[in-house]
Amino acid sequence: MKAKVHVTLKRGVLDPQGKAIEHALGTLGFTGVDDVRVGKVIEVELQETDAAAARKSVEEMCRKLLANTVIEDYAIELTA
Amino acid sequence: MKAKVHVTLKRGVLDPQGKAIEHALGTLGFTGVDDVRVGKVIEVELQETDAAAARKSVEEMCRKLLANTVIEDYAIELTA
Repeated sequence: MKAKVHVTLKRGVLDPQGKAIEHALGTLGFTGVDDVRVGKVIEVELQETDAAAARKSVEEMCRKLLANTVIEDYAIELTA
Repeated sequence: MKAKVHVTLKRGVLDPQGKAIEHALGTLGFTGVDDVRVGKVIEVELQETDAAAARKSVEEMCRKLLANTVIEDYAIELTA
């Protein structure tokens, strides 16, 4: 079973990496870019075959390691 | 119009960040993790309202700045 964990900064949290990209795009001549935000995708390959158990395990991974829940949100997507 | 750009390392390219996460998960007691890979998601908010023009522009952004096409693949997802 494969889990895709999307980790994004919460709304309102400053994203310097995004701002740097936005600025660089402007420098390269791209106009009409209003905002850029950067997030992470962590793909975890699990031996677990039960979707409910896999989700529970990945939830715990997110809380303990993958996301900083003070400033980040996470979303889990499971595929067979 | 909003574009989500998924940037992932190509198959076969070593992912040290993923390996570090895999190791840390093991240390935390998570068993049954076969592989971990880490990618980026860049969300770009565009003024452009035409989907075809937006895709063309974002493709160019990917080639010029957002992805290193030697070692990374990118996928573009557009939403209104």
